[in-house]
Amino acid sequence: MVVHGWKCAAVLACGLLGLSPSAWAEKRVVNLTIEDTTITLVGEQTFHTFAFNGQVPGPLIHVTEGDDVEVNVENQTTLPHTIHWHGLLQRGTWQSDGVPDATQKAIQPGETFTYRFKADPAGTYWYHCHVNVNEHVAMRGMWGPFIVDPKTPKPIEKQVTKDYIVMLSSWASAWAHKPGYGGVPGDVPDFFTMNAKAFPDTQPMRVKQGDVMRIRLIGAGDEVHSIHIHGHVFQIFAKDGHPLPAPIDADTILIGPGERYDLIIKADNPGLWMVHDHVDRHTVNGNKPMGGIMTAIEYAEVSTDHPFYHWSHKTFVPDFFYEESLKKPLGMHENEAFKGQPAP
Amino acid sequence: MVVHGWKCAAVLACGLLGLSPSAWAEKRVVNLTIEDTTITLVGEQTFHTFAFNGQVPGPLIHVTEGDDVEVNVENQTTLPHTIHWHGLLQRGTWQSDGVPDATQKAIQPGETFTYRFKADPAGTYWYHCHVNVNEHVAMRGMWGPFIVDPKTPKPIEKQVTKDYIVMLSSWASAWAHKPGYGGVPGDVPDFFTMNAKAFPDTQPMRVKQGDVMRIRLIGAGDEVHSIHIHGHVFQIFAKDGHPLPAPIDADTILIGPGERYDLIIKADNPGLWMVHDHVDRHTVNGNKPMGGIMTAIEYAEVSTDHPFYHWSHKTFVPDFFYEESLKKPLGMHENEAFKGQPAP
Amino acid sequence: MVVHGWKCAAVLACGLLGLSPSAWAEKRVVNLTIEDTTITLVGEQTFHTFAFNGQVPGPLIHVTEGDDVEVNVENQTTLPHTIHWHGLLQRGTWQSDGVPDATQKAIQPGETFTYRFKADPAGTYWYHCHVNVNEHVAMRGMWGPFIVDPKTPKPIEKQVTKDYIVMLSSWASAWAHKPGYGGVPGDVPDFFTMNAKAFPDTQPMRVKQGDVMRIRLIGAGDEVHSIHIHGHVFQIFAKDGHPLPAPIDADTILIGPGERYDLIIKADNPGLWMVHDHVDRHTVNGNKPMGGIMTAIEYAEVSTDHPFYHWSHKTFVPDFFYEESLKKPLGMHENEAFKGQPAP
Repeated sequence: MVVHGWKCAAVLACGLLGLSPSAWAEKRVVNLTIEDTTITLVGEQTFHTFAFNGQVPGPLIHVTEGDDVEVNVENQTTLPHTIHWHGLLQRGTWQSDGVPDATQKAIQPGETFTYRFKADPAGTYWYHCHVNVNEHVAMRGMWGPFIVDPKTPKPIEKQVTKDYIVMLSSWASAWAHKPGYGGVPGDVPDFFTMNAKAFPDTQPMRVKQGDVMRIRLIGAGDEVHSIHIHGHVFQIFAKDGHPLPAPIDADTILIGPGERYDLIIKADNPGLWMVHDHVDRHTVNGNKPMGGIMTAIEYAEVSTDHPFYHWSHKTFVPDFFYEESLKKPLGMHENEAFKGQPAP
Repeated sequence: MVVHGWKCAAVLACGLLGLSPSAWAEKRVVNLTIEDTTITLVGEQTFHTFAFNGQVPGPLIHVTEGDDVEVNVENQTTLPHTIHWHGLLQRGTWQSDGVPDATQKAIQPGETFTYRFKADPAGTYWYHCHVNVNEHVAMRGMWGPFIVDPKTPKPIEKQVTKDYIVMLSSWASAWAHKPGYGGVPGDVPDFFTMNAKAFPDTQPMRVKQGDVMRIRLIGAGDEVHSIHIHGHVFQIFAKDGHPLPAPIDADTILIGPGERYDLIIKADNPGLWMVHDHVDRHTVNGNKPMGGIMTAIEYAEVSTDHPFYHWSHKTFVPDFFYEESLKKPLGMHENEAFKGQPAP
Repeated sequence: MVVHGWKCAAVLACGLLGLSPSAWAEKRVVNLTIEDTTITLVGEQTFHTFAFNGQVPGPLIHVTEGDDVEVNVENQTTLPHTIHWHGLLQRGTWQSDGVPDATQKAIQPGETFTYRFKADPAGTYWYHCHVNVNEHVAMRGMWGPFIVDPKTPKPIEKQVTKDYIVMLSSWASAWAHKPGYGGVPGDVPDFFTMNAKAFPDTQPMRVKQGDVMRIRLIGAGDEVHSIHIHGHVFQIFAKDGHPLPAPIDADTILIGPGERYDLIIKADNPGLWMVHDHVDRHTVNGNKPMGGIMTAIEYAEVSTDHPFYHWSHKTFVPDFFYEESLKKPLGMHENEAFKGQPAP
């Protein structure tokens, strides 16, 4: 996926100019399709989405600050779309900002479009459709994470051993299989997800004492969430990709649509600890309680084999929060766990 | 509108005492009526409001820290009202705080009332009715901006070249023409506005490279909004009028009812950039997508004459975000763009 | 209620080691029942709750940082429950964290359970059920305050003369007397309370000039609230029990479910001042305006005997915001004002 393109031509010149290799920008080429895709939120609850490469959330795009990014998009659905790169500055490339009727015409069914821009600034970003956002973003899963590594990480960032991405969203099941409709006043959201899965079909975060966790929360849907983490004080390290000048300690964080918060947590307290939305109505699956936005931190030092533990025999999917993808070489990474089926 | 009143008598004394002229307080006299007024939110969607001087938002009141303010109110509607000066301290003048059944009896239809208080502290404030706020504030447009210039601005404030006021609100069209009713549990808000207009009837913010923008967001309605600005990192400069001790960088900001945030943005990235609520359901007009709380920043360096641009032939109303009024002499400023029609 | 237990055995050793008496941990034993209890929110609006010791909010638990806490719980209702100690770290005691199916089996009707943990860290915390939180926490009053005094208070904390606890909650009257049901998508919350009472059945905060107020807001229910205080600038001193590194001045604060904010206010402006939720729809009682989350700060220097004042003949209940309980010796304190009746 990574192509060393025209920037390589600058290597010699850079050398002559005395620039360090780290100043060179890589070119990252990414190919994204948009596909009518049926995913499963939890149990039997399926949903018709317009999925990037057939998965929700979309593939991870992971680059370094200053990289030259090229994204080739092919719209395989029957409705128009665009892709907006939320939070990226698009300096000198405003026509790659991905807003229909403002920076481009929407990409029609069957059409392709190429976005080109620099990865700037560093931090936790995301991409999403900008057409009829009330439906396409709020309820059709048209979003994925876009992580830009800083050239000069902060000291605490260098200590991180476990890096997680959590995209929060909500769904109104009344519109589950009516693509092109929904997202209107009076909708009743009744499913609530982390990376498009609701408890108990979410996955735990597995750590060991001494780990330093970074949880990148992304408000991808349309609700305000109040994420509470048990057994730990976390540091609110960054908002919208930008480190706070005076980081705040907390145990609960309110996050709205479009916002991102990076939380840093020292794993110093072995146990089994809940992580969940404290908006209580977001912990149901339809009318059934104890679902929705809930997961757990499991320490290696503590057995999960307890008669009371709901996940004592859980099949672990280690990349559910992108923790493995984030350790792979930079570029784009798909995730089998998020793949759906072609919609009928 | 500006009257040099009793404070002028102190000039000689001040001179004798060696006080600088800047220590003198001006007296500002403002006259406000409350009128049954029909405004248009967007397209054909009209709404019955109780409008200050027949406009929504109400007239700008713009004074300097320490000024003596006198507001003469005349209630021309058929329902009781008051005016609360949200965020002003009312030191020694608690009976001018404008709360019915707490600091005064409500102003009955046909009655008048006079508020007198000092403009303190400096910053972004607003005024609104305090009777039946669930209807009068949340849905009848009874609010306007109250800006108090500091005697000693912060360095970054002095750099501002473009000053904007954005009052956010929501409306339940079921109650549009039933004044005296509405604002009850179960209401479905279905129109969402900036300065009482929904896209595409909002206006762009026009800047040129090198400008420094200040956007004063005011949560005037009853929803939580998540305002996202494309192509720029903004500094959260002040909350509720008070400069943050450690300003935060962001691209999206969550703002609740009654809150204000002053954002500082360096216009350093020519393009056409969206500014919108990331609560996706707030970008509809009734059931129709791509309306509500949306506008654009247009740079002078970039043509708007693109076949894809929805506002390529927009008639520009330059004072829509109060940017011209804020440059006028201090006092009260009405705005023709916000005037409605007498309600039938 | 306070028992000097096994820790006392360490006194001699501590003395020999040269540790100061303040390093000794007290043992605090608390007994809590959970009872089917009918409370009155306001006027005639009653609600079936699962009340700790028959009161909503539950009894105050007030301890010092480092104390050893033991809580004996007896479930006298017909449904399963647990108690989670929100924000407490439970170092080494994760099985006292109170999460059903994660750290324990739920406490069945008629059963008892004992929680043991250290009071750590200091600050404003709360306890609540963790079973079916969409109903039990959001609508059945299963919450109470848990205050941990710091061993080393900040200078501003030492100046506090008036300490208040305000637990915010909402209620959907459709489920008032259907225990075991409710808290489902589409619910319409129509009552909104401070310490489980709605205006005008809330109580004022009575201060005198020179007092320093600390208001501990706790988001105990399921709505986002926007608390506005008239006539004062408050300092946001702490979030979730943790002092902010750079305290922020404001007049309105957005607080979500599970969050806590400690506000410090200098009482320097005699008057009668509203304190209320600026989410306007939270100031109704059912369909009737001017109820819900509203109270007033009353200064001793100002008479309440005004013909316009709704509370001019109010019977004052001085412990409504726990201001008297917080001055009592450490331990658990029940509050007669919050007691309900056994549910039929």
